[in-house]
Amino acid sequence: MPRHAFDWIDAQAEARRRAGLVRAVRPRAHDDPLLDLYGNDYLGLARHPEVTAAAAGAARRWGAGATGSRLVSGSTGLHAELESELAAFCGFEAGLVLSSGYAANLAAVTALSDRGTLVVSDAGNHASLIDGCRLSRADVVVVPHADAKAAAKALDGFAGRALAVSDGVFSVDGDAADLPALAAVCRAHGAGLLVDDAHGLGVLGDGGRGSLHAAGLTGAADVVATVTLSKALGSQGGAVLGPVRVIEHLVNTARTFIEETALDPAAAGAALAALRLLRSEPERAAAAGEAAQRLHGGLTAAGLTAVRPDAAVVSVRAPSPEAAVAWAAACRGAGVAVGCFRPPSVPDGIARLRLTARADLTEQQVDTAVETVVRTAPAVPEPAPGRTGAPGARRAGPAR
Amino acid sequence: MPRHAFDWIDAQAEARRRAGLVRAVRPRAHDDPLLDLYGNDYLGLARHPEVTAAAAGAARRWGAGATGSRLVSGSTGLHAELESELAAFCGFEAGLVLSSGYAANLAAVTALSDRGTLVVSDAGNHASLIDGCRLSRADVVVVPHADAKAAAKALDGFAGRALAVSDGVFSVDGDAADLPALAAVCRAHGAGLLVDDAHGLGVLGDGGRGSLHAAGLTGAADVVATVTLSKALGSQGGAVLGPVRVIEHLVNTARTFIEETALDPAAAGAALAALRLLRSEPERAAAAGEAAQRLHGGLTAAGLTAVRPDAAVVSVRAPSPEAAVAWAAACRGAGVAVGCFRPPSVPDGIARLRLTARADLTEQQVDTAVETVVRTAPAVPEPAPGRTGAPGARRAGPAR
Repeated sequence: MPRHAFDWIDAQAEARRRAGLVRAVRPRAHDDPLLDLYGNDYLGLARHPEVTAAAAGAARRWGAGATGSRLVSGSTGLHAELESELAAFCGFEAGLVLSSGYAANLAAVTALSDRGTLVVSDAGNHASLIDGCRLSRADVVVVPHADAKAAAKALDGFAGRALAVSDGVFSVDGDAADLPALAAVCRAHGAGLLVDDAHGLGVLGDGGRGSLHAAGLTGAADVVATVTLSKALGSQGGAVLGPVRVIEHLVNTARTFIEETALDPAAAGAALAALRLLRSEPERAAAAGEAAQRLHGGLTAAGLTAVRPDAAVVSVRAPSPEAAVAWAAACRGAGVAVGCFRPPSVPDGIARLRLTARADLTEQQVDTAVETVVRTAPAVPEPAPGRTGAPGARRAGPAR
Repeated sequence: MPRHAFDWIDAQAEARRRAGLVRAVRPRAHDDPLLDLYGNDYLGLARHPEVTAAAAGAARRWGAGATGSRLVSGSTGLHAELESELAAFCGFEAGLVLSSGYAANLAAVTALSDRGTLVVSDAGNHASLIDGCRLSRADVVVVPHADAKAAAKALDGFAGRALAVSDGVFSVDGDAADLPALAAVCRAHGAGLLVDDAHGLGVLGDGGRGSLHAAGLTGAADVVATVTLSKALGSQGGAVLGPVRVIEHLVNTARTFIEETALDPAAAGAALAALRLLRSEPERAAAAGEAAQRLHGGLTAAGLTAVRPDAAVVSVRAPSPEAAVAWAAACRGAGVAVGCFRPPSVPDGIARLRLTARADLTEQQVDTAVETVVRTAPAVPEPAPGRTGAPGARRAGPAR
């Protein structure tokens, strides 16, 4: 009798259940009344009437889909306009829009490295950069998080092509990379620098021009950025920004660019409208950061352990995955939606609540969120005799 | 003096120029007057007023972006509705929507295989399946194109987990896999079957339910499909369809599902509207296939070498990449847009024109396209003495 092809799945599902790591999709309603501290809509533009009108208008004008890959039928004047304005805004020579930030990272890493390239990758990098490294067939050295000296050590003495890869703002903890230090290391070693600024665009830098702009690194011959259109720009998609020759190289070699249907016109139109709003209302960028600081200040004042935010993400440690789930559920029950990050989505295996600030949050909303998160925080269990507590468990929960 | 990090790119660009393989983005206008035989909008729904109105309405109701990953803030009732209706239409227990077909293939292959799994992959498979195989860390055996016996041979004697992976309709040549034969091989060996039906959905099977439906394989415990929302459904995105336990497994393990922003509401709304149109107007599916047959008949009657289409893609061989580019340009000059596929996008290295039929093409439009493609076809060069011609070169061009 033949085996049943997918029976092995049941054992994995059972193991997840035992470990308290089951995930399920929970669709929200369009008029969900929860206070949103879980989305990445940092500037509050996803529902801005000018942005949604641009999405609607683009769908009507250009069609609901792009109909093909960018090199066949999928490139529209709208994509070109978005690429040009986005690159100019962020301070790069050229830009290339892809259907997601994930696709942009796969494209950038694989196009800029190859068998024999040394890729130095931060341990806290996003999954899409990690998958890009795997696809590249490069020699990948994972260096400790936010450690430019470790990157230097990895590059020392290597004479071939090399590329350092880092998030600009790390997605889980919201801390920023030390880009000036990392760029100096790269330059000293002749290595390229690729930065995923998904969580920096729209929040950091002059008027939200991103963490590379803040570091004075945009437009450099040896620096490439990826960004998403799905966070501060309230839409969907991703882009690679860099020197013209790098962008042309991606057009010719990056599989997720060549082999994937182009971003739908509605998303391109929405992202362009959001970019123009950000340009004309640069104060939105600072407002997102200020809301994050207020959020962090309130949480830590109450004794919670939260990473000091460099952008708009505030990460709060939980004692365990189960406690994180219960905590997030209690917040939701009290009207506040927060993210709950557990293994395998967290590089260090530590569960967190992940709260996101938005430019359009009022101080009162932030204070409500703080009060709710603090009130629902789990008590920290005493470690059982003879056992070591989970990493970080002693630092989680309010000190009460 | 430090090396310049990206100087190596120039040499590759120069090599491409010499080989006649430079690609450039050419944006189209929204009112482009060309006859479209290059998009994958097989049912002519990308610009259907009900579909674009649904995109516009979804952006206004749900926002321009989904604001986060499906497991955090990104799942809406609209995504759930689309998943439920799409799975039911195609005959599967459950469905999962991702932001692209590429992401869906990465998700499905990596979730259904792992280190130690034997993956048997057709040599003609799409790049996204190939990248999925690379990311999976499975032992991948690439078998000759459309050769179920070779798949059987690869599986013979293997006692571990195994998965066969194939396009349903191959994207370059438009030929269909022999799914009944492949499924029989899989069952005899206890292997799972994963089929990318990007080019079968909406065209093949009863009312466009796809190639697995045509083969009586939908809903089986050992069969999983991926589809795109960006071709016959005129929008953007992708989906995985299969047994409930497989979909739950993807929710818990697939990185492109867990770590990527959800599909934008406009695209989800458009795809749902297109699906409903297809359900209420099932004759669209057959019309696309008939247009492809007429196109193929006209081209081959004039002496061109074109693969007999099993769905809506008609592939015509060109003598060389340069000839293919010139041929496509001549067609465009005469008002007909056709695809031009060259290395590295073609698994066998042979350049082609790729023409796509649509349900809404008139017979006169098809005949115009045939006349244009035939009239502009390159003469076949005699092979130089002492040299072997490029593979397939003798069979390209009209026999004149």
